[in-house]
Amino acid sequence: MEQEIKEIINKCDLAIKQEDFDTLMKYYTNDAILVVKPGMIARGKEEIKKAFIAISKYFNNSLVPTQGEMIILEAGDTALVISQTLLDTDKNESEFSMDRRATYVFKKNKKGDWLCAIDNSYGTELIKSRN
Amino acid sequence: MEQEIKEIINKCDLAIKQEDFDTLMKYYTNDAILVVKPGMIARGKEEIKKAFIAISKYFNNSLVPTQGEMIILEAGDTALVISQTLLDTDKNESEFSMDRRATYVFKKNKKGDWLCAIDNSYGTELIKSRN
Repeated sequence: MEQEIKEIINKCDLAIKQEDFDTLMKYYTNDAILVVKPGMIARGKEEIKKAFIAISKYFNNSLVPTQGEMIILEAGDTALVISQTLLDTDKNESEFSMDRRATYVFKKNKKGDWLCAIDNSYGTELIKSRN
Repeated sequence: MEQEIKEIINKCDLAIKQEDFDTLMKYYTNDAILVVKPGMIARGKEEIKKAFIAISKYFNNSLVPTQGEMIILEAGDTALVISQTLLDTDKNESEFSMDRRATYVFKKNKKGDWLCAIDNSYGTELIKSRN
């Protein structure tokens, strides 16, 4: 399970780098959500794809995500991934952190494939208290 | 959904305070996991109940959890809760933070009840990089 989910995340990172958003969408559930930025949610594959197109443009079409340390907490058909997500880009970014502690929720479907249901690269930074 | 999950978390906090672990276990899925501490996982209701008994004892049977700021990210039958979890106790605790940014994953079962599948009060602190 752990290796399978890591491979999917690697494939997603590659698809984002290559701006191949149709491939990327294969790894999301139909009712998946993406936290575009704090307070802004994309819901469903169509909105998520549009959000990734906008995100790529925002980063001058040079966005390369990679993962550092990762912990996968699995409970049956559900897994919480806690990952150091590193964003590399040509853009001189200051508004958002490029070294994040992300939280991703994956679900196993009936065919046995793990798909991303909740994509929140901001992790617990969404709440402002402390740190 | 949001209010329902908040009420369940409140009931769980009360059950922990009252050390009523049979009631507490009603709010977990059968294959739920609890991160007891970094690197230690309790799996299934029996192990989770034993872990809570040990945690309560560790805190001199005086543990009172409450939640501060909370964000619930819902995708169909799955929800990621990001919550400021405050732990109050008579014990003079220094090893673990008593003001946490927790991550909880809830799933809706066939009866429509939301149950906790992944209970990780340590949030993204489980990975050590940065901060």
